[in-house]
Amino acid sequence: MTYCLGILLPAGLVLASDSRSSAGVDQIALVNKLSLFSIPGSRVVTLLAAGNLATTQAVVAALRQTAGSRLPDQDIHTAQTLFDVAVLVGRTLRDVIARDGDYVQSYGDPSASFLVGGQIEGEPPRLFQIYSAGNFVEASDRSRFLQIGETKYGKPILDRGLSAESNLDEGAKLALLSFDATIRSNLSVEAPIDLLRYATDSFSDANLVTFDKQDAYWTDLRQRYSDGLAALVDKLPSPPRRVDGARLYRAPKLQRS
Amino acid sequence: MTYCLGILLPAGLVLASDSRSSAGVDQIALVNKLSLFSIPGSRVVTLLAAGNLATTQAVVAALRQTAGSRLPDQDIHTAQTLFDVAVLVGRTLRDVIARDGDYVQSYGDPSASFLVGGQIEGEPPRLFQIYSAGNFVEASDRSRFLQIGETKYGKPILDRGLSAESNLDEGAKLALLSFDATIRSNLSVEAPIDLLRYATDSFSDANLVTFDKQDAYWTDLRQRYSDGLAALVDKLPSPPRRVDGARLYRAPKLQRS
Repeated sequence: MTYCLGILLPAGLVLASDSRSSAGVDQIALVNKLSLFSIPGSRVVTLLAAGNLATTQAVVAALRQTAGSRLPDQDIHTAQTLFDVAVLVGRTLRDVIARDGDYVQSYGDPSASFLVGGQIEGEPPRLFQIYSAGNFVEASDRSRFLQIGETKYGKPILDRGLSAESNLDEGAKLALLSFDATIRSNLSVEAPIDLLRYATDSFSDANLVTFDKQDAYWTDLRQRYSDGLAALVDKLPSPPRRVDGARLYRAPKLQRS
Repeated sequence: MTYCLGILLPAGLVLASDSRSSAGVDQIALVNKLSLFSIPGSRVVTLLAAGNLATTQAVVAALRQTAGSRLPDQDIHTAQTLFDVAVLVGRTLRDVIARDGDYVQSYGDPSASFLVGGQIEGEPPRLFQIYSAGNFVEASDRSRFLQIGETKYGKPILDRGLSAESNLDEGAKLALLSFDATIRSNLSVEAPIDLLRYATDSFSDANLVTFDKQDAYWTDLRQRYSDGLAALVDKLPSPPRRVDGARLYRAPKLQRS
């Protein structure tokens, strides 16, 4: 499994991925799921991948092979908009699945999905989620984050914390806490975590950091959050007991036999 | 969808369920998913239900019809152990699905699952999860909680907070926070929440409370937790930037093109 997260803020983009690749409990490996296709100064294009590793690697490799070729509709470097990049990624994904899917099916699921985030000169930063069918949706100010892979454990902290006012560092902090929740509850997601903070109109992907399991900041963040959460829960009042029931709603007929 | 949670602690059991039943976005109803089959003073038996509502209601109704009948292997009131209750619930579930499943299949999924928690004289409190196949697993001190329905959003807070030292009120508080996380992130789970705290060897299910959406404690708990969490996240240090990269792990080859 995998967890990848993209956050679209007025301040820019936060993009993060874990590194666990596992074809089974006895075959555990670490891979990069974040790929950069940037031209510093004019465009930053980031792909985050989830799903069948052979499929996602084939898509990324195909995109790299044609990058810079100037072939129409095939060159990720000359795509005019991030929408065009999303179309290209979706089409490449369709091509790979059309070629390999039938062979793979009897061994496992060939499907995959991507997040595509970045900024191309002339546009604001954008963020897309490409489904295995090759179609896609775009993040907006009404839905600021997109997730692929093991998405549910890490969603509540984002639903609570993210707002239009969040800056990139706050978004990055929430992203890491979202990964922490996922990693604690699910064995199939694991550090190192790749984290890119992209500042609007910077056209630079330089602020990419990787946190491994023992990284000082990452372990400190997890510990502080755990301790703080335990203290917070401890301070919350206990639920009233049945003897206080008078002020509680009662279900109309909770049958007893 | 549904969310039901059972927690097994040395101090007793915490059992909770939401109330949303929905056969589609235009048909939203509230139902009881928690059913009691107790004989105060000698046994407390609680069922929590998830899945196809016709299936779960048929199972509960069948169990009520034979409760007190003294028919061997059919009377939930005379089952000797909670294991025997789990066997009976599983068999009843199989019977209902065998009878109705083929007719239902073309309209939707007939499957269902249950949590069975309680205590029967002569045994400690026990907690089981009955799968749609009618087989089941039991909670233990190594896996203190079982969930059915929409389980993932509410799992991290339990993974963090529950321990053998948690008392019933602490367990109940964590259960409600687990429901809060689920309700915030998923439309298909909703209050009222039924919450039973069962104290070991009390053989009483009197401490059953129901929190509706506007309940003062529930809204206060959610607000305090949200505020506290926001303050906690705010105080956490921001992730280091790339310029601090020297002390950060670098992925071996993060390809750039």
